[in-house]
Parts: sequence; C-alpha cells; structure tokens
Amino acid sequence: MLHEKLIRDIEQVVGPAGLITDAERMQSYLSDWRNAYSGKAAMVVRPASTEEVAAVVRLCHQAAVAVVPQGGNTGLCGGSIPDQSGAQVVLSLTRMNAIRAVDTGNETITVEAGVILQNLQEAAAEVGRLFPLSLGAEGSCTVGGILATNAGGTAVLRYGNMRDLTLGLEVVLPDGQIWNGLRGLRKDNTGYDLKHLFIGAEGTLGIITAAVLKLYPAPRSTTTAWVALPSTEAAIELIALMRGQCGDRLTGFEMMSRQSVEFVVNHVAGCNDLFAQVYPWYVLIEVSDTLADAGLAQMLETALADAFEREIVLDAVIASNETQVAGLWAIREGISEAQNHEGPSLKHDISVPVSSIPAFIEAADQRLLEVFPGVRIVAYGHVGDGNLHYNISKPVGSEDAPFKAQAEAIMQVIYDATLQFSGSISAEHGLGQSKREAAVRYKDPLELQLMQAIKTTLDPAGLMNPGKVL
Amino acid sequence: MLHEKLIRDIEQVVGPAGLITDAERMQSYLSDWRNAYSGKAAMVVRPASTEEVAAVVRLCHQAAVAVVPQGGNTGLCGGSIPDQSGAQVVLSLTRMNAIRAVDTGNETITVEAGVILQNLQEAAAEVGRLFPLSLGAEGSCTVGGILATNAGGTAVLRYGNMRDLTLGLEVVLPDGQIWNGLRGLRKDNTGYDLKHLFIGAEGTLGIITAAVLKLYPAPRSTTTAWVALPSTEAAIELIALMRGQCGDRLTGFEMMSRQSVEFVVNHVAGCNDLFAQVYPWYVLIEVSDTLADAGLAQMLETALADAFEREIVLDAVIASNETQVAGLWAIREGISEAQNHEGPSLKHDISVPVSSIPAFIEAADQRLLEVFPGVRIVAYGHVGDGNLHYNISKPVGSEDAPFKAQAEAIMQVIYDATLQFSGSISAEHGLGQSKREAAVRYKDPLELQLMQAIKTTLDPAGLMNPGKVL
Repeated sequence: MLHEKLIRDIEQVVGPAGLITDAERMQSYLSDWRNAYSGKAAMVVRPASTEEVAAVVRLCHQAAVAVVPQGGNTGLCGGSIPDQSGAQVVLSLTRMNAIRAVDTGNETITVEAGVILQNLQEAAAEVGRLFPLSLGAEGSCTVGGILATNAGGTAVLRYGNMRDLTLGLEVVLPDGQIWNGLRGLRKDNTGYDLKHLFIGAEGTLGIITAAVLKLYPAPRSTTTAWVALPSTEAAIELIALMRGQCGDRLTGFEMMSRQSVEFVVNHVAGCNDLFAQVYPWYVLIEVSDTLADAGLAQMLETALADAFEREIVLDAVIASNETQVAGLWAIREGISEAQNHEGPSLKHDISVPVSSIPAFIEAADQRLLEVFPGVRIVAYGHVGDGNLHYNISKPVGSEDAPFKAQAEAIMQVIYDATLQFSGSISAEHGLGQSKREAAVRYKDPLELQLMQAIKTTLDPAGLMNPGKVL
Repeated sequence: MLHEKLIRDIEQVVGPAGLITDAERMQSYLSDWRNAYSGKAAMVVRPASTEEVAAVVRLCHQAAVAVVPQGGNTGLCGGSIPDQSGAQVVLSLTRMNAIRAVDTGNETITVEAGVILQNLQEAAAEVGRLFPLSLGAEGSCTVGGILATNAGGTAVLRYGNMRDLTLGLEVVLPDGQIWNGLRGLRKDNTGYDLKHLFIGAEGTLGIITAAVLKLYPAPRSTTTAWVALPSTEAAIELIALMRGQCGDRLTGFEMMSRQSVEFVVNHVAGCNDLFAQVYPWYVLIEVSDTLADAGLAQMLETALADAFEREIVLDAVIASNETQVAGLWAIREGISEAQNHEGPSLKHDISVPVSSIPAFIEAADQRLLEVFPGVRIVAYGHVGDGNLHYNISKPVGSEDAPFKAQAEAIMQVIYDATLQFSGSISAEHGLGQSKREAAVRYKDPLELQLMQAIKTTLDPAGLMNPGKVL
C-alpha cells in the first residue's frame, strides 16, 4: 500500500509523537467544532518544526497525496476538514506553538503557526503592547488559521484584518521548499508582495509556518456605551460623526437589530434590556486611548449629546465600570448562541460598502419576507467594516425540516442583494468548502480565472487543500 | 512597417489627441525628471479611458509590442522609461484624471490612475477628510505611479504605504482584458487578494487604471517639535516612548544626522540651526489629533521632559506657529537639494527592522569610512518605518569622477550591511531598472523564482514593462 510506505516515511520525520493513524484519535481532526463538516484521512501528522513540515509536504508531494493544513479547527466553512476519500493527509500545525521573538523596538512579534491567538495577545500584553485581533474563538484558533483565512473580528475598524497586521511570513510551498519571507520590515519595495498571496488562501497555495506580526501601544483607558437608534441610516451617520470627532479612539462600533437583542435577552442568563423602551437598532460603541486620563467618557458624552440633538440617537448609557462593560459585550457576543435556542439558524457573513448597509438591509429584508413570510432576521455586525452577520431563524411555530430545506433559496436571495450592492458573500469567514460553489456564481469569471492561474502555477499537482476555495 | 500599422490602429482608438509620434513632443516622456534615465519609443499613447487603455494594450499584445506604463514620471529608479530600442510604446495615464466618486459614508474615494496626488489630497480635504499619503513629488506624481511603486513618504508611520490605503483596483491585463476589482470593501475573503499583486509590481503585470482608496478623519490640531539626540539608540528609545504615550497621535518621526542638517544650513536659504550647540542627531516629531483642543503641546512637553530626564533627549523646541512648523519641515525636506551643492550624491533607500537602525548605521558607517576615507554620510529617514535614506557625498576637496567611479562599490558595502540586518535594498522607491540587478544578488533566489513564475503566468509574452523589476 502506498499509504503504508508514506506513513513509515513520515514517521521517520515526525516520530511517533507526530503521527496519528488510530481512527478514534484522529476523530477530533476530522470534523469541525460545530459538526457541520466531517471527512476521512489517511493519517493526521503533527510536525514540530518548519523543517518537519517541509519534509512531510515533500513526501506527500512525491507520493501525489493531498495535504489538508489545519490549525485550531475553529473555522465556519469547512476549510480545514478533509474530503471523504480517506486518502488525504491532515497536517496539524498545533505543535508548532513557539513564540520565536518579541522585538519591542521594532514593535513586532514572531510566532509559529500553532500559537493560539489568546497566547499571542498575552505575550504582547506582557511587554506592554497590544496585539489587536480579537474574535470569539480566540481561546482555540491559531495564528496559521487566522492568517490562512485573513480573520477579522471586532477590532478591524481600527486595526485592520489579519492581513494588515502581518509584516512577514514563512511558508512551506507545495513541493516542500521553504520560503523564508519572515521579514520584520514596514517598507520593502523589491518586487511582488508574495505574502499577500498566501494570506487568505486557506492553505491552497502553501502552508504558513510562522509570521512576523505588528504590535501596537496598549490602550490605558477604554469607555463603552450602549446606544439606541431609530434606523440603520442613523448608524451610518453616527459612525461618521464619531470618527470625525474621536478619530482612532473609536475602536468598536457593533450594530444589532432589535431581533438580535431580543433573542439574547430571552435566552442568555444575565443579559437584560438596558432601556425601558424597545428600539429598532442598537449600537455598542467602544473608544480607547493610550493616555490613562484621556477624558473618554466626556468625549463620548459630548458626541452622543450632539447625535441626540440631531435625532440620530434615541437613548444611550455609558458603562461606568468593568462589570457593566462586560455586560454590554455579553449581549453582543451572546447573539450567536441565543439564536440556537430558536432552532436552526442560517448564517451569512456578507459585506457591502458601509454607506450601502441601510439599502442592503432594506432590500434583503423585503425580498426575504416576501418569499419566506415569517422568517426572523437576525442582523448584526461590524458597521465600520461594512460587515453584517445576516442570519435567519425559522418562523415562530414552524418545523425545522421545511425551514432547512429553504436554506439554499434563502442564501440566494441574500447573496443576490449582496451582489446588487457590490458586496462580498464572505466578509471574514473565507470560502472553505461551503462557499466554493457560491463563489463561482457570484464572483467575476475573470477573477476566478486569475485565481486558478495562480493556483496552477504554485501548486501544479493540486495537492494543497484541494476542494477548498477554488 | 509594423509600427506604422500599429500607429494607425492606435490612432483609431485614442484619436489624434491621444497619440504622440513627433520626436520633440515625445521627449519629456522619454527621460525622467532628474535626467538619470532616458530611452526611445515608437510612440507615446495617452488614452482617455479604461476602454481606450484596454484597446491599446490589446493592439500591442496582438502586434507583440512592449508597453511601458507611465504616470507623473517622477520615479527614482527609471521604472517608467522605455529602453533604447525605439520599439516600445509608452502608455501615459495622465489624461485619465477623473475623480470618479467620493463616498464619505464609506470613507472612500474612487480615482483614475492619472489623478495627481495633490489633487487627490485636495478632493479629500474638500469633504473634511484626509488622504494621508504625502511625499516630495506630490504636485506631479500620479495615483497610478504611486500604486505601481507602493509609495511611502512621511505619513507611513501612522497610515501605512499606498498598499495599505487601497481597497480596490481596476487593472488592464497584459492581453487587454479589464479586471474590475474596484470594490470599496474593508472585508472580502472570497479567494486570493489579487490587488496586492498589482500594487508595487511597477507595471510589469498589468496597468492600473483606477483605484478605490481609503479616507481618514482630518486632524484638527497638529504640533511639531525639533529635538536633539545623543545617538541613534536614543531615537529608537524615544519613538517607543512617544508611541506608548501618544499612540496614534504620533504622525511624524523624521531623524537626521548632523551632516544632513549641516548641508541644509549651509546651502538652503532661510534654514538655520535651531540650537546654539551642535548635536549628532536630530528628530522632527509631529503629533496630531482629530480634536481641535487635544492638548498636544502639553502632551509633547510632558513626553519630552520625561525623555530629557532619561537623557534620551538633549534639547528640544516646540513650534508655536505655522511659520515655525514650515521652517522645521523645510530643514527635513531641504536635505536632498542641499546635498546636490556638495557634488554628486549616491542615494540609497534602504530599510531594516526599526530596532536594528543603530547597529546598521554603525556597521555601514564604519565599513564605508574604512574603504572610502573621507566620504560624507548623509543619513536621514523615517525611523518608525525602519527606512533610511543613506546617501553619500564625496570627500571634501576631491573630484567628482573618481568618486562616481566608486558608486558601485559603495552601494555594495551599504547593501551588504542591509542584508546583514535582514533589511531591504529598496524600501520605498521600487526596483525599476536601476536596482533590478542588485535585487538578483540580494534577494532570496526562491523568492525571485516565485516572482518570475507569477510574471510568466500573467504576462507570458513578457510585454508589460520589460526590463523592470525582474
């Protein structure tokens, strides 16, 4: 058997500790945390160094066996799950979890792909710096995974996506060569910027093994507010007003529909409505500053009073202590879980230009409710990035099965509206296996052709995470 | 003659106003502003729209004629100058100078490639926004040129390079197809990020015809200081201190050696020493804020007093009015011109990790003065980006010719030191034709191989700006 020879060769490289072939022990690598995707694999390999990754990839390349790179396996689109053939090799980077260097003079940190995001954040905090990327899965997602998917989260408004936080990469190419692009330079104009090809490519062009990432000054003060708005148009006006006045102090601007908040209030213990009255939209605003005494509360009050005068804001409360701040974020972060209590939820992670958010929501809401009366729309997201999680729950009292059967048709209505406003059908979750076909329908054919040409150039044998993205 | 047919066909597309074949009228397109590079061309074409660019490129592609895209022709590496054959077509984008859209809700502006940077800055200011990229040639360089070279400048510290300011591109591909990637999205994870391939590729992969660029809140207050330092180590400590205290308010941090300032004081009218005493290094610090009454002077004073206590700073003065601010920037911006008064200057635009600046300067200075005694080193640059303009003037009293003959050897010493500290031999000026061969010596062969593979994939006939970059 080809695989038996390959297993022996790979074991020579990674040792017994780096190889899993036992079906039961492989299990957690073969399905995602939501159990939405599962597959089979010839083996799971866990190399401990870049050289081991390179040697394993070289062996797989020689044997013409496909490799599925995997980080914390917290993705939402099945990008790190192998296919059903049982012929693919899952290559887990989780043992490569060293922080290789911290350079405060250069404001950079060099980390391996298997470092968990939260550990990276803590390493930055230890030297008085901030690594700003923050998202729900930060306790288990890894640097390699968030680079491969160009992850976003709540701090993108101020600090950008993972792509924007990256200065250099080390990548094992499909044939097992190591590209050392691990540079800590903020300016380097000596040809094509190759790192941007690998970031967001979901492991289809090579395996990211390490990265040089940017650090930022740690904020010394933060203030958070919960604001009620009459409309999505008001949210767009409010963020422009806040940006103009607070500049980069504005580090969070999360919008939620009444439906979203209602689900949380009904289902998440400890989360309650903050206002006696019910409002159609809410925004969680966070401002922060490197100064300890930056007068943020005063600044926020002034801006919100101005907005109140202009009737953009209907009500507002500023958190006065850590507990209150945590309570506000708990509402925002409770939406996904709360929605599960209302039956299956159809999730869509779209983006449009910020200025098109109101028109998008109006158009999508209207068409959805025409075609699928009674569905409940749970719209929330990062306004500053134009990124909406536009999720759908079944009508009250209806069964799961007929609702689930409409998933494809509902998705189509939402993606059509996204396209109408020049948006993206995957803002921050990537394509993986789940959105690959939709991408073919919703992306420019010329762009897909260029992507395919690059894929064929870098991975002519098609062995890097096949069946994902393209 | 092939060219006569091509000229007729192209004239059909662009009309008489879009075509120059007269030798004298072509002249300004065939050499750069410094007269460092000059070439010949079959014609200069000036299309007025993306469709015209596409049609011209298609015709050239069919005729197997090479195209040299050109913007404001202000580059320093000969990237927009044709070769000596007289067979290439110069394609000037300067007639495509429309601002297509301003979207304040999305904080974006959509501009054509021929828009002059200063006009872009002014269009942003008209709607109360900032387009932050700023550099010496801003009165004549164009959007297409600064995208093709991923231009930097003095505001990179806070706002990033041109690459970081770009959300979407429209590109005419080597075969004349138009890729419409003109999206105004801050999050879009639907495959490979193609725009980053074209940015910084100096027209070797396609012709950028338009872009969606980010806008920022306009600062309402700015304060500027002139600071004397004992050493480059002190500059690294000072920038970390300033960043930690002022955060993103720090928008400028320009370091200059005494030699640099001395040349300016000696040769530029109106520029004088600010301190009675002479110091080895100086820094121009700029802080700015979106608030009108942000207390910047106070903040700067506190930070500098702290630095003075720690003996990082030896003397400092804060500008108290616009005239003084202009006077400080005049010193920084006068260096290049001042150096010309001392004979030919050998310019090197390198970067290293910020933390390696002191060691780089020490090593490069020492080796240079050993091998070329008496040369005068004019080192200055953007500390926050690790970007030094490390320029050399001849020894006092020596002739130009023998000094110029050492240019290659001097460059080699400097680039060797750059490599030793994992730096880049072209931080912000690109490779063009001048650094193409040096890149072959100083870049990782695997990286050059990947670049070549991408070039061959996108431009198999090698017709886009041949002889540049690769």
